[in-house]
Amino acid sequence: MIKAQTLKGFRDFLPKEAKKREYVINTLKQVFESYGFEPLETPALEYEEILLDKYGDEGDKLMYRFTDNGGRKVALRYDQTVPLARVVAQYASTGSAQALPMPFKRYQIQNVWRAENPQKGRYREFLQCDADIVGTDSPLSDAEVIMVAAKSIEKLGFKNFKVLINDRTVFKNLPKETIIAIDKLKKNGKEKVLEEIIKKGIPKEQAILILSNLENAKPTEKLNQILLYLEKSGVEKFKYKFSPTLARGLDYYTGMIFEIEIEGYTAGSVCGGGRYDNLIGIFSGKPIPATGFAFGFDRLMEAMNELNLFPSDIDQSLVQVLVTIFNSDFLEKSLEIVSKLRNNGVNAEIFLNENASLDKQLKYTDQKGIPYAIILGPNEAEKNEVTIRNMKTREQKTVSLENLHSFLF
Amino acid sequence: MIKAQTLKGFRDFLPKEAKKREYVINTLKQVFESYGFEPLETPALEYEEILLDKYGDEGDKLMYRFTDNGGRKVALRYDQTVPLARVVAQYASTGSAQALPMPFKRYQIQNVWRAENPQKGRYREFLQCDADIVGTDSPLSDAEVIMVAAKSIEKLGFKNFKVLINDRTVFKNLPKETIIAIDKLKKNGKEKVLEEIIKKGIPKEQAILILSNLENAKPTEKLNQILLYLEKSGVEKFKYKFSPTLARGLDYYTGMIFEIEIEGYTAGSVCGGGRYDNLIGIFSGKPIPATGFAFGFDRLMEAMNELNLFPSDIDQSLVQVLVTIFNSDFLEKSLEIVSKLRNNGVNAEIFLNENASLDKQLKYTDQKGIPYAIILGPNEAEKNEVTIRNMKTREQKTVSLENLHSFLF
Repeated sequence: MIKAQTLKGFRDFLPKEAKKREYVINTLKQVFESYGFEPLETPALEYEEILLDKYGDEGDKLMYRFTDNGGRKVALRYDQTVPLARVVAQYASTGSAQALPMPFKRYQIQNVWRAENPQKGRYREFLQCDADIVGTDSPLSDAEVIMVAAKSIEKLGFKNFKVLINDRTVFKNLPKETIIAIDKLKKNGKEKVLEEIIKKGIPKEQAILILSNLENAKPTEKLNQILLYLEKSGVEKFKYKFSPTLARGLDYYTGMIFEIEIEGYTAGSVCGGGRYDNLIGIFSGKPIPATGFAFGFDRLMEAMNELNLFPSDIDQSLVQVLVTIFNSDFLEKSLEIVSKLRNNGVNAEIFLNENASLDKQLKYTDQKGIPYAIILGPNEAEKNEVTIRNMKTREQKTVSLENLHSFLF
Repeated sequence: MIKAQTLKGFRDFLPKEAKKREYVINTLKQVFESYGFEPLETPALEYEEILLDKYGDEGDKLMYRFTDNGGRKVALRYDQTVPLARVVAQYASTGSAQALPMPFKRYQIQNVWRAENPQKGRYREFLQCDADIVGTDSPLSDAEVIMVAAKSIEKLGFKNFKVLINDRTVFKNLPKETIIAIDKLKKNGKEKVLEEIIKKGIPKEQAILILSNLENAKPTEKLNQILLYLEKSGVEKFKYKFSPTLARGLDYYTGMIFEIEIEGYTAGSVCGGGRYDNLIGIFSGKPIPATGFAFGFDRLMEAMNELNLFPSDIDQSLVQVLVTIFNSDFLEKSLEIVSKLRNNGVNAEIFLNENASLDKQLKYTDQKGIPYAIILGPNEAEKNEVTIRNMKTREQKTVSLENLHSFLF
């Protein structure tokens, strides 16, 4: 027999987990939409040439690529930014019925696939949550993406977090390796970063100067404008901070960059983003400015779990009551009760096996997080009553059939 | 430059379409969950051996299969039933923390991939919406899946529909080709079906007898029970019908089968399902009974569009008002207004480009379905007022800044 197993780095989401994910997704969507961001979906498969050479050598290596049955070279979605660039080129033509409103504010919450070495917290299929504004270079849009990211974090219930903000252009004269080393300042400490920079061929004194210059840097003019807009928008000062050594690893950023750190969650930032004015135009033949951010969904889930931020009723079923079946003689009676409840707007289940023990039926009720069970046996039937069991307190109460509805709600 | 294009049979869903899809998905989820069905997600990629040989030669041919970077033979999800069978085998072991409640009522709404020849209404990536009950052979569960499917259709706004119900076992002594021919009775008419059966080697008189026997058949005992449960549950008689020639093409059904037809939508049934007791156990080494159904999502969308069932505000933004920017001198003032609105719980946008013409800003407001625009120029600023424009009626009204909030809501 074939072994029932999933591929390494791929996950099933059983109901309890799927519901938690859904909660986070819905919360993010609601915030995004309240700021006028709209949903976009793109295919899982693209022509390989659309995705290739966009993510560096490492990206091309980790990409799932193959030749389809028709001989086309195809690749699985690797991120959501390159597909966004394709969409903008494909539909942005003014005048067409499908023309995108500009600035185009879209969010996209879909899986991406990367053949990474699976390790704790790293998967080969994972959800990305992106929100981006395409088609404007106004610092207003930079301020807005920061506000939307912060509002999302708040809406999820995080209280102590900080948005670290910088301008990527301050690094523009530094070699790439130096930027990558500085990006790890918080994680690795100053000594180690200096060591790293020196190892890459920068004289010690110069390396020290670079770091101290950065640490004492003032915001750029553009960044000052963004910070002013945050202030004018009433974002409380303690929620964000100019962070002159924040570098962000990716080299496609061209202006403001930011990350969100959560107090009490040490695995890293849960959200990062910034301005990238050279990427969205790659299929359009002209530069198109853009700014945005992405949530690391798995990290977000981890942080939510660690800080206990899921609502206490997340495990509770949408079903309020399960009607048990005493035995097959009572099936029709139980069916009538469940129908009556449903017709009165109560979400109710009936146990779908007339031969199961009461014990098994109650265990099921418990396992699914249904708050009440209704028991209807010969004693109850004789008196036109039912027994209602509160699954949490295990209290049972007998009520007449007529009063059932008003008792429950 | 690389051409911005999608693969044949693959689609982008731009905001307007994505929102409509979301509406249907959310409606289905709500109904499914109100009956105690819970969400399940499985990976896009599975080991090839999990999926191979499960869908017949045709299925194996249409499956997206490839060898991954690690040399594993993998395949893209082809349907949601075989993954469900794998999940049941993988997690159903009693006692484990991840044990599935039994009967396991799950719904799954994910994309599947099939390398079909693209044609009108046929795609290579498409959404499936499945709801199934695993682990019970009670006719109660068959009645329940019918009810849930019908309730979903109603909740989406369809008024005139009919659930056609039959028992697949009445066909058990007929050759497969005959069943396939009979399955097309409604589409092709009696003459053509007879012709088809005769062509497959059945003598004419016998063919006529087969058909007339079927047409006059009575429900099986099991089916009678299911029909009784529908009646006892208060499902109105006009919503369902015993349909003795309904065959359903797939040969994995082992009992009750059903389809939903919608009056006024002729492209075919939007939902189909039935009992299949031999499939879910394939990875478990023992038979596990199951019953369920699937919505054809694209057909459902088509029917919704044709019958005009989307709510009239489906195109409307969640954003209630857009604040325009007269010019960069007025940026901060506009920013203050939008912040004030947001802080008062109003979903508001500010146009994210301080150099755009008012005309462009109003066009954007219109395109995104935002009902109001706020205009704030020198005249208004002097008097501490704003102009509010109703985008539908084009009426404009000037109100004082203090009264803005109460005017809008």
